[in-house]
Amino acid sequence: MPQSRFILALDFPVKREILEELSPKVHGLKVGLGLTLDLGVQGVKDLLKGLDVEEIVVDFKLADIAPIMQGIVSRLSFADSFIAHSVIGSKGALLDLKRFLDANGKKLYLLGAMSHEGWDDSLNSYTTKVILDVDPFGIVAPATRDKVISQFREKFPSKVIISPGVGTQGAPFGSAICNGATYEIVGRSIFSSGDPLNNLKFISENQEREVLNCKGTKAGKQ
Amino acid sequence: MPQSRFILALDFPVKREILEELSPKVHGLKVGLGLTLDLGVQGVKDLLKGLDVEEIVVDFKLADIAPIMQGIVSRLSFADSFIAHSVIGSKGALLDLKRFLDANGKKLYLLGAMSHEGWDDSLNSYTTKVILDVDPFGIVAPATRDKVISQFREKFPSKVIISPGVGTQGAPFGSAICNGATYEIVGRSIFSSGDPLNNLKFISENQEREVLNCKGTKAGKQ
Repeated sequence: MPQSRFILALDFPVKREILEELSPKVHGLKVGLGLTLDLGVQGVKDLLKGLDVEEIVVDFKLADIAPIMQGIVSRLSFADSFIAHSVIGSKGALLDLKRFLDANGKKLYLLGAMSHEGWDDSLNSYTTKVILDVDPFGIVAPATRDKVISQFREKFPSKVIISPGVGTQGAPFGSAICNGATYEIVGRSIFSSGDPLNNLKFISENQEREVLNCKGTKAGKQ
Repeated sequence: MPQSRFILALDFPVKREILEELSPKVHGLKVGLGLTLDLGVQGVKDLLKGLDVEEIVVDFKLADIAPIMQGIVSRLSFADSFIAHSVIGSKGALLDLKRFLDANGKKLYLLGAMSHEGWDDSLNSYTTKVILDVDPFGIVAPATRDKVISQFREKFPSKVIISPGVGTQGAPFGSAICNGATYEIVGRSIFSSGDPLNNLKFISENQEREVLNCKGTKAGKQ
């Protein structure tokens, strides 16, 4: 089986046996603040312990001064990586966080742009500047506006790009990959209705078909 | 005693008896994510229950799409108000959050600008636009750059402005009030060393003196 190009978003508690089924079929798990408030840090640790995934990403969309963000990531040792907002800037914030995460063997993703209608893409030249400055492991860019991912892919050819916005938010599965993303983030499409494992199978097939269709374009070059 | 113009930031657990002493001497308490990760939601509720304060502000610096932010605030019923980032924009994010909080009798503060060196003040015209659009209860503006608070005060004469950056971050106590803030946020200046109650007494006197000195200017007009 080819490596999965999905990251599964967990924003509320999911049964451990369902997670055990889903985990081997996705690249990683993205832990939201909602889940963490419901279970507590220890509860999240217990839920995720020993699961067969390559990456656990904590997505609290950190956007605070350095001492606060460092305090937060220090409390979440189970994570491999953290998502923060690039728009808050480097000095006294993201540069310090990046240094701190590097020293602790953790990875940083920076939001280049968001997926909802209200995000103003004229901010993206500034977020790009901050991303160049901070040099994170990866970037978060939305599937909901095709050009935005391709612009970030063009600027950052070798960075991992993870992309929310496929499925419930409207973009077709696979479209973000076709536009240059490395992984697509799914959550509600898996858990909203029906059987999660079947849903994942269905959307994986959709993603694969879309990516096959666009091969020879951007996805083929990666 | 005049009403306190301090909000006390709680970013890690503090003994209940110390909080009982400090609470009547401040306007409100600001609950950070670090404290919440340490104690869990129920632990924070227990710590704050029945304290003599006018306002409990949850400061997770929310900066996500509407369904995620609504999920988070729903889990924190003990709070009177929430701080979110204006830079994420209105549609699909802050407008929905504002409507949701209004319907639940809760208040919203939007960050106009941040206190650290890396925040780019050229973003402030955009955050001002979003604040005008969303019309929150209050604004967060930094004490570390005098002009920024006065600019927000000028644009929003009747909104509550709360201001981090006095004390440990470098601005003199009282300076944010003099520039137009309603409350100054303190945390590390109270808890870093010595006796918290004495520290609060000391900085309250400093704040009062500074505000007396600048009366007749901005603070006098409020």
